Amino acid sequence: MLTFYYAQNTCALASHIALETAGARYDAVRVSFAKQEQRSAEYLRINPKGRVPALVTDRGILTETPAILQFVAQTHPKARLAPLDDAFEMARMNAFNSYLCSTVHVAHAHRMRGYRWADDPAAQEAMKKKVPQTVGECFELIEREFFAGPWVLGSNYSVSDMYLFTLAQWLEGDGVEPARYAKVAAHRERMRADPLVARVMAAEAAST
Amino acid sequence: MLTFYYAQNTCALASHIALETAGARYDAVRVSFAKQEQRSAEYLRINPKGRVPALVTDRGILTETPAILQFVAQTHPKARLAPLDDAFEMARMNAFNSYLCSTVHVAHAHRMRGYRWADDPAAQEAMKKKVPQTVGECFELIEREFFAGPWVLGSNYSVSDMYLFTLAQWLEGDGVEPARYAKVAAHRERMRADPLVARVMAAEAAST
Repeated sequence: MLTFYYAQNTCALASHIALETAGARYDAVRVSFAKQEQRSAEYLRINPKGRVPALVTDRGILTETPAILQFVAQTHPKARLAPLDDAFEMARMNAFNSYLCSTVHVAHAHRMRGYRWADDPAAQEAMKKKVPQTVGECFELIEREFFAGPWVLGSNYSVSDMYLFTLAQWLEGDGVEPARYAKVAAHRERMRADPLVARVMAAEAAST
Repeated sequence: MLTFYYAQNTCALASHIALETAGARYDAVRVSFAKQEQRSAEYLRINPKGRVPALVTDRGILTETPAILQFVAQTHPKARLAPLDDAFEMARMNAFNSYLCSTVHVAHAHRMRGYRWADDPAAQEAMKKKVPQTVGECFELIEREFFAGPWVLGSNYSVSDMYLFTLAQWLEGDGVEPARYAKVAAHRERMRADPLVARVMAAEAAST
């Protein structure tokens, strides 16, 4: 049995969709960022980074979206969430996921969480100002270079689709017009229309 | 045959050590950041992100350190660079590597590359000022929570050791005193004393 810690409107959505798609047996526990629960002593015992997602397993606790996504795919091979038997294709998947966590998510984070990298409020404002450009450039690169189509990696649906979809939720908030990225925008609509994805999002929205 | 693109004093060192340790057949090609070669039309055809590392394979080009590290480990299983047969241990490894790329490397990058996230020079100065704190906090967490010992993941040497070693090169430059982290500092010395690691670093320093 797994216990999955998430917060709404965070990158944890990708792992949540993966768990549900895999048919995993798990309990989902909401962490309220509004109540700063991610900084509570109780939660820091689960994830000392004070972030989501975290996945409690019988063998220990896992964090970091790319790691959890591959873990769910490997432990539920029948769901075919990743190109498990092909090291090169796995590397393509991990390169995509790694770009999302280390560049795209980081570009986005400079809008609301600039305090992580500078104390001066004026500097935080300067960071916020550049977000439409930096996030926009990331999605331009994804659209032009990394989206094979019809799914991220090509003909097979994978955890990379769940992760891209999750980060694409933030485009409007980041001041980026999704229509500039035809493939990413169509992919987002297709994912949103998926009943399983809609169910996970509704569950995250409901469990306050 | 593989072609590996790197620049000196970058995170590419981790993949370079992995390739050498795996006994991989590869050509190493230096990209000069001083000459801005990473922004040349020629290099952007290899890696449109304008970053290193990049690994050209017969099947296509791979980027992003965590993806390349797992790929080298999976395609050279005899070298035992990763816990390949254990999905949970692989996830622990990937969680560690993911933390390095999305949090530790990013914290470091705010010292020299603040222009990525703000145009205002004063904001870039404010970011630079916070780097000793943010990088210091990352290594504190690694020291306290994520370094199993004697190697990062425990009794077995892995690509996570190569990656941690690579980022630990930057501590002094980031204004962080390595002696504050006894395990990380001892690990760095042990890695540096490894003849293979020394050979890779000498090769990177020589090939100007």
